[in-house]
Amino acid sequence: MTTDIVVSAPGKVILHGEHSVVYGKVAVASSLNLRCFVHAAISKDGDVTLDLPDVNICRKWSVASLENNLLPRLELCHDSHGHPSPPTEKSLHRLKQFAEIDTEESESRHLAIISFLYLYCYIGQRSKEQSGLPPIHVRMISQLPVGAGLGSSAAFSVCLAAVLLQLTGQATPSVHPEEQGDSNSAKGAVWKWSLDDLLLINKWAFLGEKIIHGHPSGIDNSVSTLGGAIRFQNKQITTVEKMPSIKILLTNTNVPRSTKTLVAYVKNKHDKFPEVMGPVLQAMEGLAERSIKVYGHMFDRPDKWQGYSQLEELIDINQQLLNTIGVGHSSLDRVVKLTARQALHSKLTGAGGGGCAYTLLRPDTPDEKIQAACKDLEEAGFDCWVTNVGAVGVYYHSNPDSDASLPERLLE
Amino acid sequence: MTTDIVVSAPGKVILHGEHSVVYGKVAVASSLNLRCFVHAAISKDGDVTLDLPDVNICRKWSVASLENNLLPRLELCHDSHGHPSPPTEKSLHRLKQFAEIDTEESESRHLAIISFLYLYCYIGQRSKEQSGLPPIHVRMISQLPVGAGLGSSAAFSVCLAAVLLQLTGQATPSVHPEEQGDSNSAKGAVWKWSLDDLLLINKWAFLGEKIIHGHPSGIDNSVSTLGGAIRFQNKQITTVEKMPSIKILLTNTNVPRSTKTLVAYVKNKHDKFPEVMGPVLQAMEGLAERSIKVYGHMFDRPDKWQGYSQLEELIDINQQLLNTIGVGHSSLDRVVKLTARQALHSKLTGAGGGGCAYTLLRPDTPDEKIQAACKDLEEAGFDCWVTNVGAVGVYYHSNPDSDASLPERLLE
Repeated sequence: MTTDIVVSAPGKVILHGEHSVVYGKVAVASSLNLRCFVHAAISKDGDVTLDLPDVNICRKWSVASLENNLLPRLELCHDSHGHPSPPTEKSLHRLKQFAEIDTEESESRHLAIISFLYLYCYIGQRSKEQSGLPPIHVRMISQLPVGAGLGSSAAFSVCLAAVLLQLTGQATPSVHPEEQGDSNSAKGAVWKWSLDDLLLINKWAFLGEKIIHGHPSGIDNSVSTLGGAIRFQNKQITTVEKMPSIKILLTNTNVPRSTKTLVAYVKNKHDKFPEVMGPVLQAMEGLAERSIKVYGHMFDRPDKWQGYSQLEELIDINQQLLNTIGVGHSSLDRVVKLTARQALHSKLTGAGGGGCAYTLLRPDTPDEKIQAACKDLEEAGFDCWVTNVGAVGVYYHSNPDSDASLPERLLE
Repeated sequence: MTTDIVVSAPGKVILHGEHSVVYGKVAVASSLNLRCFVHAAISKDGDVTLDLPDVNICRKWSVASLENNLLPRLELCHDSHGHPSPPTEKSLHRLKQFAEIDTEESESRHLAIISFLYLYCYIGQRSKEQSGLPPIHVRMISQLPVGAGLGSSAAFSVCLAAVLLQLTGQATPSVHPEEQGDSNSAKGAVWKWSLDDLLLINKWAFLGEKIIHGHPSGIDNSVSTLGGAIRFQNKQITTVEKMPSIKILLTNTNVPRSTKTLVAYVKNKHDKFPEVMGPVLQAMEGLAERSIKVYGHMFDRPDKWQGYSQLEELIDINQQLLNTIGVGHSSLDRVVKLTARQALHSKLTGAGGGGCAYTLLRPDTPDEKIQAACKDLEEAGFDCWVTNVGAVGVYYHSNPDSDASLPERLLE
């Protein structure tokens, strides 16, 4: 059994199609190379520890207590396809009781504890390596802001599923030639799981997401597991086969927004003016489909410049369409304006009304321009990151001690 | 024969559907109660005078010279329906020669002289009142800015056709009950022509427009003649039966724009992204059709408030859609922002890229708000007018000496 495991999984951004996706239109989401890192090790003290320093959570249980007081009291169900089901009402109640979490608690960081316990017990008791639950120490460090619509909880669930399945011998990574789109990986090779293993990881991660989010779409965990980009329509997720790695500037306006309120706002406009909003949503779908074609061309061809020009135009148009349906915000206008000073093109990503935006960067965009944009954005009170989309999904860091991509605090 | 005639005709604004109309979609244009006034009188000196002080033009010819040197040399043609045709190449050349205008001249104010001479000769020689051309003095004063896309030349052509037809006994106005939508008319009654006469005026005005503009759509002269609003699609003009009079603030950003360049810009985007731009144009059509329905409800019902709310939303959406197709401009964003300070809603009208915008005013919008908006707009270097759309078309001012709506300089 591997005793020291480091995995990472990316966040996600919606590239095109937010809001119209609610009306059955195509959306494209992509991995975001701001990653969640999980370090798991067999613990020497025989306890199980969940250490989430980013959200101020550190919990410890003895394996004995988990085996005697929690595991026997959980109903571990599966559906007719043999897929694990989320905890029953009764199990959820017992998980919360065991973790001393209020039964009405809905904060993600607390639900993450429940998610961990459930996945740990469920996956652990299926171990192929040992009988009984393993004593492990799990520490998570994330580059993703929490609650910003960037899939931070999905990336955590994916990492958790990966380390638990690997620790228990149910999924084993192997070395792959370095994939395009992963500027952060150790040079030369990436350790990844087989597609079957990835689908298994994704299945468990989705379960984790359900515990934290209730009714997730499955986009976040799928993108985080598989990397690259996915096309999403009517709850059907398909992989975008040819997704290049694209450098972006991601900006968090830090303006809080309510996805529910924004979705309701658009619905109201759609109910009121169907003859106008219907075609607008159709335009968004056309735009999302077109972007997929452009990504394909950029993936195939070494000459990507035309692709970048087209993506810039699509980004501008999409941003205006999102303004048209009323989910813009003065903070997002600000991002557009400040980045336009450097001739860069930005759009909101996610629900809008604040939240995040991304700015396309060309491979030859001078660093000074990027730095100037970041400076302006930070002075406006926004956070920003230079990162990339279309990055590799969950992967195994085979050589953590010499891996410069890992956050310093991870191996503490 | 009436010897002293004053008529006025309104300008026009496109309410919804600019640009999409180029793609065969519905547009709605309405009369704009900034008017062109023409005073025509039988001249005592026996000369024919065209006095356009707004554009610094004053020309005088003797009737004898017109009868002997111009009229016999003009080919006055009509088409197979008996409708008058624009001047032949040869006639145009002779008109310019006679008026001492360079043959390559394309400036509207000079072409207005040609238009006058052609209409004067053509209509004059058909006189039912006298043989020979009448000695007349024509003076025009306009409230419409020239070259701002507000139909100033059409309003002039309409007035010209109306006075010439009236002077020569070919169209005679009669008194009508005061029409809704004409806050500027003398109280109690409006002198107008019968529908047949109006259609005759419109036909000749269209001819005048053709001389000034080459290939006009016919929207401007139709709206100016008939007043109210028209629906325009694929060169077909139909009257919007129920058009209320609506108060607006009209702003001229004074930013010059080239309609041709903007239309080409949209075409380029449409060629490049048909799957996006097609639905966007469709949304604009849906919006134009919807606005016509809303006008109808507002016309029928004394309770107009819901209509105003809907128009405000449609104005906002339309403005964003126009931004989406790339015909916005920072000056127009400025108008939107400055009027939004007073909770007012604005959109560009016409080609965009500068030019004009209109702002909806509710009947109960406090004067202070309107004045505050005007102040801000003027400080930004824009011109603005409080006026109304859906106003009465061309009409005869039966009592010019006591008509307060007439510009002071008109009767000089």
